[in-house]
Amino acid sequence: MNTKQVVIIGGGFGGLYAAKAMGRLPLHLTLVDKRNFHLFQPLLYQVATGGLSPGDIASPLRGVVGRQKNTWVVQGEVVDIDPQSRQVILMDGVLPYDVLVVATGVRHSYFGRDEWERSAPGLKTIEDALEIRRRVFTAFERAEREPDPVRRQMWQTFVLVGAGPTGVELAGALGELANRTLRHDFKQIDPTQTRILLLEGGERVLPGYPAALSHKAAAAVTRLGVTVRTHTLVTQIGEHTVTLQQGDKVEHLEVGTILWAAGVQASPLGRVLAEKTGVELDRSGRVKVNPDLTLPDYPEIFVIGDLAHFAHQTGQPLPGVAQVAMQMGYYVAQRLKKGEAAGLRPPFRYKDKGNLAVIGRNAAVADLGWLRFSGYLAWLIWVFIHIAYLIEFDNKVKVLFEWFQDYLFRKRGARLITDE
Amino acid sequence: MNTKQVVIIGGGFGGLYAAKAMGRLPLHLTLVDKRNFHLFQPLLYQVATGGLSPGDIASPLRGVVGRQKNTWVVQGEVVDIDPQSRQVILMDGVLPYDVLVVATGVRHSYFGRDEWERSAPGLKTIEDALEIRRRVFTAFERAEREPDPVRRQMWQTFVLVGAGPTGVELAGALGELANRTLRHDFKQIDPTQTRILLLEGGERVLPGYPAALSHKAAAAVTRLGVTVRTHTLVTQIGEHTVTLQQGDKVEHLEVGTILWAAGVQASPLGRVLAEKTGVELDRSGRVKVNPDLTLPDYPEIFVIGDLAHFAHQTGQPLPGVAQVAMQMGYYVAQRLKKGEAAGLRPPFRYKDKGNLAVIGRNAAVADLGWLRFSGYLAWLIWVFIHIAYLIEFDNKVKVLFEWFQDYLFRKRGARLITDE
Repeated sequence: MNTKQVVIIGGGFGGLYAAKAMGRLPLHLTLVDKRNFHLFQPLLYQVATGGLSPGDIASPLRGVVGRQKNTWVVQGEVVDIDPQSRQVILMDGVLPYDVLVVATGVRHSYFGRDEWERSAPGLKTIEDALEIRRRVFTAFERAEREPDPVRRQMWQTFVLVGAGPTGVELAGALGELANRTLRHDFKQIDPTQTRILLLEGGERVLPGYPAALSHKAAAAVTRLGVTVRTHTLVTQIGEHTVTLQQGDKVEHLEVGTILWAAGVQASPLGRVLAEKTGVELDRSGRVKVNPDLTLPDYPEIFVIGDLAHFAHQTGQPLPGVAQVAMQMGYYVAQRLKKGEAAGLRPPFRYKDKGNLAVIGRNAAVADLGWLRFSGYLAWLIWVFIHIAYLIEFDNKVKVLFEWFQDYLFRKRGARLITDE
Repeated sequence: MNTKQVVIIGGGFGGLYAAKAMGRLPLHLTLVDKRNFHLFQPLLYQVATGGLSPGDIASPLRGVVGRQKNTWVVQGEVVDIDPQSRQVILMDGVLPYDVLVVATGVRHSYFGRDEWERSAPGLKTIEDALEIRRRVFTAFERAEREPDPVRRQMWQTFVLVGAGPTGVELAGALGELANRTLRHDFKQIDPTQTRILLLEGGERVLPGYPAALSHKAAAAVTRLGVTVRTHTLVTQIGEHTVTLQQGDKVEHLEVGTILWAAGVQASPLGRVLAEKTGVELDRSGRVKVNPDLTLPDYPEIFVIGDLAHFAHQTGQPLPGVAQVAMQMGYYVAQRLKKGEAAGLRPPFRYKDKGNLAVIGRNAAVADLGWLRFSGYLAWLIWVFIHIAYLIEFDNKVKVLFEWFQDYLFRKRGARLITDE
């Protein structure tokens, strides 16, 4: 019998954990990704606000799984999938498979207003983070040089659209930047006069969390100088302008920097799978998978991570977080290890280990299911969990020191303005 | 009497040391730079080869001197200087001065063949380093995917033009990358078969060093798998092609990655000064300064660092290294502190504390004037001197840990391929 060819598309949390868990199985594994590194997305907002460097939160895929004897790492762009001939079509080649794992995740979504992206960048890639970093620090530099008080106020105004974890974490980091890190660094402006608006369409920040923690998170960012506005919709975004609607009240704002953290859409490979296999997509373009994470009639194609819409456990789709993706990756590896026939696989079960969001130095909110808490302890747990993951991948002890140093000196060493 | 207005253009080693040394003097100081950070250029080659991240070797200028009470940091681009009205003209404003310090350094030079830059980038800025990093790691990825053995060999060929410190350090780092870091990371290619050519027009590598150290450096890079070719001129560069001439022998090479480390030319402000003040420039466009680093007839304009051509001490211009620039910056601050009349200033004297070049893990050459040595001890000294400088600026303890970790695990954590 020939050895099975397994192809994993995507080196995010889902794909990488699947690849690691398959490292000793008797199969030929190919891990394909457009990029040559795994990105630790939960800390991307730290790069966007100058606290960490890209290299601190990215691990070369070859370094993580390239030395597994059964694993070939390919940097390449997947343009098509042919489920009939069982082939993945790359821009510059073809990869045949017996088992395919699609884990290409999501991008941010502008709900059909893609023209907003230029004025309000989102945060999914290293390049996104560097672009946001460039805009944030350039805004302070512009304000420092601006003689007109109205335009100066504009440069000192930041708007964050969306108060999920990314929006809240970015807002907290901006608040710290303005009120602590940069406090004494300028001569013409007072950074503590910076206006940071965190906008949320729903009734509270962190909608996925219990209400008590949402309130604590809102209180924590408010202490850092952030203005939280709930029930507030963004109806128009232009270059340095935002139009808000809160009930019947419409407001126009002049804004130096607008950041988007409001929604996601599935990777285009979701649509490819729908066309080729007839699988159903949800409104965000995510793939509605079977209880064993495969596609109907295609027991050899798994879809995992943020790209999967898995609603068999609670009736609601599982959230797009690293934990879910990693558990799905591990689940797929187990199925290949056990080699069950398609009908005999146990359904995937997500075990929720809790949610954490960080609001700034010393402040975070945690929801472990059986225990909810906030403040310094939650922050400490957050720091240790994140460092543990980073060290698992790549011995990134450095990040620990970076944070320790920030903690002691209240600095952000990576606040460089580099070119687009 | 009004407080003196001092303007420093450029936040490199010269400008920044001048600004630091003036921190407590009774004057108004403005430090202008295009960028918002000081770049620790001696370690730029580490960013280019994935050993360090940009944030590790860059320090925000506001963090270093922004809190000095007498210092205003301005991010802005200088487009002109008017020595008659004593004004610096920015893209978006004007800065009057009583004393001007120009410290805008050099860029690489293609000796009139600027079209070579696209195919053979040089290494002066963070963006240069990231572009080189992208090319280097992309070359290995391309080789891994290339079925044609000739083209595969092309992707596994690197040419470095110029064997000064930058060329030698880059060659050593590439040798380590191919023969150690990446050794086990690929399946289709053998990274140890990588061909790295270090080309030098003169008779030996590190022409500025004593001959014995040049030979040790050549031996050290050779041990790392680098082929050194001296007396070799590059007569043509195209996309992935290099034409060499060694004596009468002409050779055409197919090359995946060509890097330029062969020459420098002065910043364009040198030419502006020549036009406006009549000061003489040398062939590289550097400004021929008086013994007190000022321009003839303009005792209030100092030119320091790499931009200055200072030949009063030895008859030869001082080398373009950080040490010279820092001592010049300190010298200018002393003149302002003492307030001597222009004719009464003591001439600048450079005190050479020695040269160091690093060739790879555990190997370096050092020339301290009274002592010359190479190998592990030179490498240790190199590491400590560089870390001492970095810590002085920015508490960059992190770099120490990055190196320690590289040393233990032989990794390069920052080998990301990011977009242009």
